[in-house]
Amino acid sequence: MNTQSTTKPYVIGLDLGGTNSVFGIVDARGEIKATTAIKTQGYAKVEDYVDACIDALQVIIDEVGGIDLIKAMGIGAPNGNYYNGTIEYAPNLPWAHDCVVPLAKLFSERLNNIPVGLTNDANAAAVGEMTYGVARGMKNFIVLTLGTGVGSGIVINGQLVYGCDGFAGELGHVTMCRENGRLCGCGRKGCLEAYCSATGVARSAVEFLEKSTEPSLLRELDPQKITSLDVSIAASKGDALAKKIYDFTGKMLGEACADFAAFASPEAFIFFGGMTKAGDLIMEPIKKSYDEHVMPIFKGKAQFLVSGLDGSSAAVLGASAIGWEI
Amino acid sequence: MNTQSTTKPYVIGLDLGGTNSVFGIVDARGEIKATTAIKTQGYAKVEDYVDACIDALQVIIDEVGGIDLIKAMGIGAPNGNYYNGTIEYAPNLPWAHDCVVPLAKLFSERLNNIPVGLTNDANAAAVGEMTYGVARGMKNFIVLTLGTGVGSGIVINGQLVYGCDGFAGELGHVTMCRENGRLCGCGRKGCLEAYCSATGVARSAVEFLEKSTEPSLLRELDPQKITSLDVSIAASKGDALAKKIYDFTGKMLGEACADFAAFASPEAFIFFGGMTKAGDLIMEPIKKSYDEHVMPIFKGKAQFLVSGLDGSSAAVLGASAIGWEI
Repeated sequence: MNTQSTTKPYVIGLDLGGTNSVFGIVDARGEIKATTAIKTQGYAKVEDYVDACIDALQVIIDEVGGIDLIKAMGIGAPNGNYYNGTIEYAPNLPWAHDCVVPLAKLFSERLNNIPVGLTNDANAAAVGEMTYGVARGMKNFIVLTLGTGVGSGIVINGQLVYGCDGFAGELGHVTMCRENGRLCGCGRKGCLEAYCSATGVARSAVEFLEKSTEPSLLRELDPQKITSLDVSIAASKGDALAKKIYDFTGKMLGEACADFAAFASPEAFIFFGGMTKAGDLIMEPIKKSYDEHVMPIFKGKAQFLVSGLDGSSAAVLGASAIGWEI
Repeated sequence: MNTQSTTKPYVIGLDLGGTNSVFGIVDARGEIKATTAIKTQGYAKVEDYVDACIDALQVIIDEVGGIDLIKAMGIGAPNGNYYNGTIEYAPNLPWAHDCVVPLAKLFSERLNNIPVGLTNDANAAAVGEMTYGVARGMKNFIVLTLGTGVGSGIVINGQLVYGCDGFAGELGHVTMCRENGRLCGCGRKGCLEAYCSATGVARSAVEFLEKSTEPSLLRELDPQKITSLDVSIAASKGDALAKKIYDFTGKMLGEACADFAAFASPEAFIFFGGMTKAGDLIMEPIKKSYDEHVMPIFKGKAQFLVSGLDGSSAAVLGASAIGWEI
């Protein structure tokens, strides 16, 4: 975290999701001083979207004392490129699905030219953990976001890993099954995400139900509508099959982390996102599998942690943290 | 590379191998001004080894004009820990096989307290490529050393990746075969090194010869004595089976690099070590497999290069480059 100007105590965070765009004005301790939101959809042109954002933002900027108290803005967005502040070919954003949009520049121009940084949501989560969360003081750690997909933010030597193009840290797309792997949303087969995202857990549920006749609470549900939350609820009621699904998921995540340790030897793996609500159900199999698979030299060196950011505001806090970095 | 003092134009490099310890005094352009060597074995105590090193070194130090012209020393050594300058539990070094030896400190004390940095040979190779070789000017790249084992040195944001303990970058030990994988020297199964090191290629040769009756020049050799060089020679004579062995090896390296791209999105993969002498025989299948397996977003972004350091002095140049970094 850079030294913060004492005269500018706040940063703006924008968690730009497919449905909602949530803003927060945040101080250096991670306290959200004011917050607002607009719908992300419904704007054909990016200029219209930014106009609507600025209208909403202006209210909370005034609330905290005006733009002169704002040091910078950070944006966490799908397909966000840190190096040039653009959103590139984001399938779920009508104004960016077939082009490169200079979103950071557009916001900066409307906000007194304050610096605006932009990256994807998993990278924002990593900076958020380093700034306000469980990774404070850490120089080498990996955040894995377990949501609809599996994302990652990697910090090495105290810096986020962006790679040569700004898109490094796609750990959801390392190949875990080289033969007969599940088709992944990226078009390739056997990716970690195809198994260990919320969607992947739901697919595992269908597979597990099909390949055995073991009784399970999950059999009462329409297999095509089972979610990872259903599996988590069933497991928490002691359902053996549901537990096996989480064991399978955690085992694969542990194996993947063992490979990531060979790369970066981090001091912690930090899990973020909806699926972490399953708690020990997912964390215990991860740790067990990691211990079984990691190289002896790395054994016992990495902590396994759940995000320290408050769930409902974690994404906006993460985005805001980018503001302290630029 | 740090700014170099104009009054101290040289660094010392020590390539500490299991058999030989090779010294070079090197200038900022990577020109070796003087060189010498001693046998590594034959010393029960590390102090005796350092004594013998200093005796040999003193001659070449005098040759280039004395210790006052030497900025620092870099050591590339098995099980070298950069953070504390130690060699830790190195199986092939009698004076370090069951203990932690503060080798950097011992050398510094005998060399007018010049800074001495120490790391493993693959990391030294990476710094060597960045300082004098094909990675000059690059900020994000991965060196893979293909020798008796598979080692790696990873540079991200212009810095070597050491991780939380100094031992990051063990890419020879990511798991490529999760079922029925070959036993690796590290005690685990299915590691990249078990397939793509020189030893791994020799093992592949035995497997390929056993599982078919295809004629091959390799059948004239004692299967237990086949080396990767034999396979390379046979392939260069047009031997189809030998070519298949290199195709198999390159395919796996390409798949591994595709996973490494998802982690670090490097601008180059640089191959170093004896096996790179096979040239296109190994490089072409690597590139083909990488293109087939890498995420679309990373396609075409990374170069595939062979080390730019002169083979016979590459290791000592790499070690010396550590001297400019500290």
